[in-house]
Amino acid sequence: MNIQIINIGDELLIGQVINSNAAFMSQQLLQKGFFVEKTIVIGDNAKDIRQAIEESFQSVDIVILTGGLGPTKDDITKKVIVDYFQTELVIDTPTLNFISQLLKSRNVPMSDINRQQAAVPKNGVVIPNILGTAPGIWIEQQQKVLIALPGVPFEMEQLMTAEIIPRLEQKFHSTEHYLCKVIQLTGIGESTLSDLLESWELQLPSHISLAYLPQPGLIRLRLTGCSQNATRLELEMNNETAKLSRIAAPYIVAFNDDPLEKIIGQLLLKNHQTLSTAESCTGGYIAHRITSISGSSQYFKGSIVSYANEIKQHVLNVSETALTQMGAVSEEVVRQMADNVRKMFQTDFSIAVSGIAGPDGGTNEKPVGTVWIAIATPKKTISFKCNFGNAGGRMRIIQRAAIATFASLLKEIQNNRH
Amino acid sequence: MNIQIINIGDELLIGQVINSNAAFMSQQLLQKGFFVEKTIVIGDNAKDIRQAIEESFQSVDIVILTGGLGPTKDDITKKVIVDYFQTELVIDTPTLNFISQLLKSRNVPMSDINRQQAAVPKNGVVIPNILGTAPGIWIEQQQKVLIALPGVPFEMEQLMTAEIIPRLEQKFHSTEHYLCKVIQLTGIGESTLSDLLESWELQLPSHISLAYLPQPGLIRLRLTGCSQNATRLELEMNNETAKLSRIAAPYIVAFNDDPLEKIIGQLLLKNHQTLSTAESCTGGYIAHRITSISGSSQYFKGSIVSYANEIKQHVLNVSETALTQMGAVSEEVVRQMADNVRKMFQTDFSIAVSGIAGPDGGTNEKPVGTVWIAIATPKKTISFKCNFGNAGGRMRIIQRAAIATFASLLKEIQNNRH
Repeated sequence: MNIQIINIGDELLIGQVINSNAAFMSQQLLQKGFFVEKTIVIGDNAKDIRQAIEESFQSVDIVILTGGLGPTKDDITKKVIVDYFQTELVIDTPTLNFISQLLKSRNVPMSDINRQQAAVPKNGVVIPNILGTAPGIWIEQQQKVLIALPGVPFEMEQLMTAEIIPRLEQKFHSTEHYLCKVIQLTGIGESTLSDLLESWELQLPSHISLAYLPQPGLIRLRLTGCSQNATRLELEMNNETAKLSRIAAPYIVAFNDDPLEKIIGQLLLKNHQTLSTAESCTGGYIAHRITSISGSSQYFKGSIVSYANEIKQHVLNVSETALTQMGAVSEEVVRQMADNVRKMFQTDFSIAVSGIAGPDGGTNEKPVGTVWIAIATPKKTISFKCNFGNAGGRMRIIQRAAIATFASLLKEIQNNRH
Repeated sequence: MNIQIINIGDELLIGQVINSNAAFMSQQLLQKGFFVEKTIVIGDNAKDIRQAIEESFQSVDIVILTGGLGPTKDDITKKVIVDYFQTELVIDTPTLNFISQLLKSRNVPMSDINRQQAAVPKNGVVIPNILGTAPGIWIEQQQKVLIALPGVPFEMEQLMTAEIIPRLEQKFHSTEHYLCKVIQLTGIGESTLSDLLESWELQLPSHISLAYLPQPGLIRLRLTGCSQNATRLELEMNNETAKLSRIAAPYIVAFNDDPLEKIIGQLLLKNHQTLSTAESCTGGYIAHRITSISGSSQYFKGSIVSYANEIKQHVLNVSETALTQMGAVSEEVVRQMADNVRKMFQTDFSIAVSGIAGPDGGTNEKPVGTVWIAIATPKKTISFKCNFGNAGGRMRIIQRAAIATFASLLKEIQNNRH
């Protein structure tokens, strides 16, 4: 079953907000066999919204809109919907009561603007939004379904998972089954990998397709299969994944789409082991990624972000000799950082990163993008140098350093079990 | 001058990658008077790409495509372009030489796939891509301009700023001037602010429009003006901003669209002051945001991410009494964290955050979303409690805690100057 998404908002069109809603919606829909064939982003403009709805309904029977349901004057989606379906807005009493209670709990007086948020299309179904004042709207006419959701990401996400997906599943019984498998690889470029996989890719059945999703320092391969026979599809997908893993074994770090920090966390949890970090150029990004995983407090004790050299020396106890003779971006310093934080925090594993994220601070000997990484384990400390180059800027170097660190740590945790 | 963007890639449509390219392109284009009226996202499918190009050229004369120029089999954009413009692909020798050199420098052998990346439409202009193997393509026919760029963000970004924008400016001399002003506010809800600003908003001239961009803990207001008279427009925009600032003064934190951590950094740099952080529930996110600003090493010394209580006690020297009697999420603990990291790191300012980011760990007394924040300054230490609620999940609580911390720190730095 194909769907089109229309994301409405001037802030998206002028690039002030990155459209993360479409990705979330597509992911959730695909898991239930609904495939988003097109996403359209337009501004808060009645003519454009109307035209986008008309165009989308020429290709598909289900259109999901987000945005423009809020309380402010630039939110005009509801007016376009009632115009398109030749109906009118009426106040929905349960919604009005809910808004009234919500505002009361926040000590905010009910305004005319809030009241208007309870206005919904007369022949539409109101989808209660427990997290905000703008409800979702589901409206059907002549086999066409239009769903309008608020654009605030966490409100939309709750409505999609709790309300929209179950209702879509109930109404449209899909006979097509979709299956996605993701394999993550590091340490190989896209072209080299493509050459390596060419003969395997050519023999893939026509209903299984391959895509390359390169990220800084990481390539995700996605196999997508589509079939009416779910069992056979699963067998075929497993079979192709097995073939792939024989060809590309040295580069594979994961057989799922989880972030590496999540896979690391699961292993540490299983092994009852702990982790600490000492970060310089990554400035807390690695600790942030580790702690963005819920439950990370069970294996992650903390980090010292030693951005200044004096902190490396006085808090992390890196020797002054190493800092002055080798420099902060050196094998000796990064090994001391890893060893010392591991001792201070009494953890099984620790990681340390020191490098030049730029745009300034590079030299001929150590250009921007030079990063030293150390991993301390219960048995040994390993260290290696990366040169990520200057292209792509500061954030890209920080991301690549994190990926390289996670990939290396993951291998050390796996090796340490034997 | 209006433009449409077409972002191509299965990974975007299935939601595996968030489409950040469109936002970057729109921002850059708008600054030079080119307005993106629509963005379309489609998969690596020849029919859909062709149809999107045809539809876009019905509305606008300039279409920019991204994606599908890579070396792998799922990259088919070039084939569709030569088909649409009824031309053919030819090998561009300078591009081939560049690819050959690039691969040589990376010690990667030249493959047939790499060679195909030098194939470009016969009557197109090749836009050299200094960061990758897929060049940009600029092709014109009957007043229509089609620009195709690689989908890898940092390659696209370099091509947009260094090549595409200057070429567009040279070819299309816009008579319309666009001006955007952003005002950032905290401590007020969207509806309340909308009520407060209603009469001002109603008197805005018709060529100046207002938009609300709510984020967790922060509202950005965007005024967009469009006129043929640049000088008058600037005067009008300044005038309206001044009126707004009189109405909403207590809530305004910035008169630009910079991240708060950047504004904080600029102030610290100007005042020759330094900053350190002690983070628990934010897990390094605050340090990461501070260090994502280039030049932050001049004022940011570092952070202790004390995720485990034993680290709070043994590394940050928080008293055992406070931890056991008040708990890690308490005013006493967060004040000690701020005071102690300020002393340890010898900085002018420090911030500390301890809270319950969830999904687990909440109690009746301290539900998920409870966050204590302390700011230590040269004169005093302030502390306050936030309750961000459970809605929106872990990352939203972490983000709101960071925004609340930054807004409060910004005010303290501003106050400390007097």
